[in-house]
Amino acid sequence: MQFGISLLPDVEPETRSPVDYYRDVLAMSRLAEELGYSHVKMTEHYLMGYGGYCPSPLNFLSAVAAQTSRIRLFTGCILPVFHHPVKLASYTAMVDAISDGRLDVGFARAYLPYEFETFGVPMDTNRERFESTIETVIKLWTEENVSAETPFFSFRDATTLPRPTQAPHPPVYLSAVRTPESFTRIGELGHGLMITPSGIELNAEQVHRYREAFNAHHGDSGKKPTVVASLPLYVAETDAEAARIADPYLREYLRVWIKSTDSWDNATSKDYPSYTGLSRYLRTLTPGTCASRAAPSSAHPSASPSACAATWRPSRAST
Amino acid sequence: MQFGISLLPDVEPETRSPVDYYRDVLAMSRLAEELGYSHVKMTEHYLMGYGGYCPSPLNFLSAVAAQTSRIRLFTGCILPVFHHPVKLASYTAMVDAISDGRLDVGFARAYLPYEFETFGVPMDTNRERFESTIETVIKLWTEENVSAETPFFSFRDATTLPRPTQAPHPPVYLSAVRTPESFTRIGELGHGLMITPSGIELNAEQVHRYREAFNAHHGDSGKKPTVVASLPLYVAETDAEAARIADPYLREYLRVWIKSTDSWDNATSKDYPSYTGLSRYLRTLTPGTCASRAAPSSAHPSASPSACAATWRPSRAST
Repeated sequence: MQFGISLLPDVEPETRSPVDYYRDVLAMSRLAEELGYSHVKMTEHYLMGYGGYCPSPLNFLSAVAAQTSRIRLFTGCILPVFHHPVKLASYTAMVDAISDGRLDVGFARAYLPYEFETFGVPMDTNRERFESTIETVIKLWTEENVSAETPFFSFRDATTLPRPTQAPHPPVYLSAVRTPESFTRIGELGHGLMITPSGIELNAEQVHRYREAFNAHHGDSGKKPTVVASLPLYVAETDAEAARIADPYLREYLRVWIKSTDSWDNATSKDYPSYTGLSRYLRTLTPGTCASRAAPSSAHPSASPSACAATWRPSRAST
Repeated sequence: MQFGISLLPDVEPETRSPVDYYRDVLAMSRLAEELGYSHVKMTEHYLMGYGGYCPSPLNFLSAVAAQTSRIRLFTGCILPVFHHPVKLASYTAMVDAISDGRLDVGFARAYLPYEFETFGVPMDTNRERFESTIETVIKLWTEENVSAETPFFSFRDATTLPRPTQAPHPPVYLSAVRTPESFTRIGELGHGLMITPSGIELNAEQVHRYREAFNAHHGDSGKKPTVVASLPLYVAETDAEAARIADPYLREYLRVWIKSTDSWDNATSKDYPSYTGLSRYLRTLTPGTCASRAAPSSAHPSASPSACAATWRPSRAST
């Protein structure tokens, strides 16, 4: 098992300037490399405090690449439905080159109605757009003179530059949240799986589905299933001390996250059957409940070192 | 007058790996800062050796920002017609933050048919798309809750994050090539002007048009017209020595450039009346003729130091 840092800005102009934010996360990234962490992960969002300070994880990771030499750079996640595959294939390959082959590419489906509305992308065809964009990006990374004809984009004879540095292409991870079929599908496609744990039993069952499907379809390929789990974790001498320090940050994160999901109050989408009213559900969370969901075998994700290690053992067994 | 370095990759997989290319241009950028140059400029292109190694100048400049502290970062140019204004406003503001306010944003209209075809953007409405995208980006940088309703994009109540670091926003430059009205228009809009000199008399007349229009519309604002000129320049002890060293590079640049403009052989566009057959014109150029166009008051753009200084004086007077 490896450990990395996972960033998703929850700052707003009122709480922190962009210059201060980037100075801090670049310093954290350099420190993470010094301390032997495996990766820096950064995600893509727009327009709201929730993730909005990082609309381009690739811009950020390019800066990290320039200040580090070993740590891997992880997009967690890029939202491919908002991008043309020729751009995605080219931009990722560029950061793969700048980092000398240290890029991992995580993709997620996107789920915030105001992002879809702003970019004029319909939510209801999102699953199909998601899969065909990723499939085309991989084709562009690995083949030349690629043509595509889809309802979402179409082009002929494209050979993207630069070509990827990693062979055959940067590792690909897809995120899944709840739908069991998503976990199976990611295994069938042979990609890595990204999860945000919300209950260890649920994860174990889902991760099992993924591994079964992966091995059934790619067991002979030499590739191995890989699971990346992101969760809030603060290590202190005691659980109480950890909670005292970490809870205000978790509370602020929840506040900013809930604000972004208010756009689900009056939105419906057949591709997102359980999302309407999402913020009403999130409003029931507290740092404590959030914590027990994140690391249920410990009292709190902000755990003492021993509780922390105990929390992590089950994950280790399942990844 | 200030001097910077202007990059446009002319490498292909057969001639140079992306890792080597980026290692070199990042080292050049650090050196440029050490030597007191004013800026590093990098441009956006796709799919061909001509510029194709840098589909995202912002990704590159973010890496430069992370390795430097004073030199300014210049997109020369971003092609706004291939981007959603919410992304452009957000991504540029992000690099503005990472660099602590060192970003200059140059925009160009794009002119390569295969780029338009691949992204499904029609060339014939390009001028209108160009202007409305830039106008909207500036609005997004300077206002909150911005709505836009155009044939090219439409959205409501968007407040982009991060907000720009420079006030009121990063300086904007637009490129112009030949059409006299373009120079007037850029002056009217009050932006900086980017040119690629192709004859000093033509430049002087065009720059004059720009300055007149700028002063007529913005003379009272305190803003000043600014001209950025990019041209190949190699300094050696003698002109002959400079030509001996630089000509092979200019020849290779011409070869790669001509290859990219072959797509104009059978293309026509009312927005680009004089471009059909462009590569046939470029094929008549040699490093020598290219040189005389770039720096006509010297024998060669690859000039001795004294010839070089002489070449630059007229530009100084006109900028």
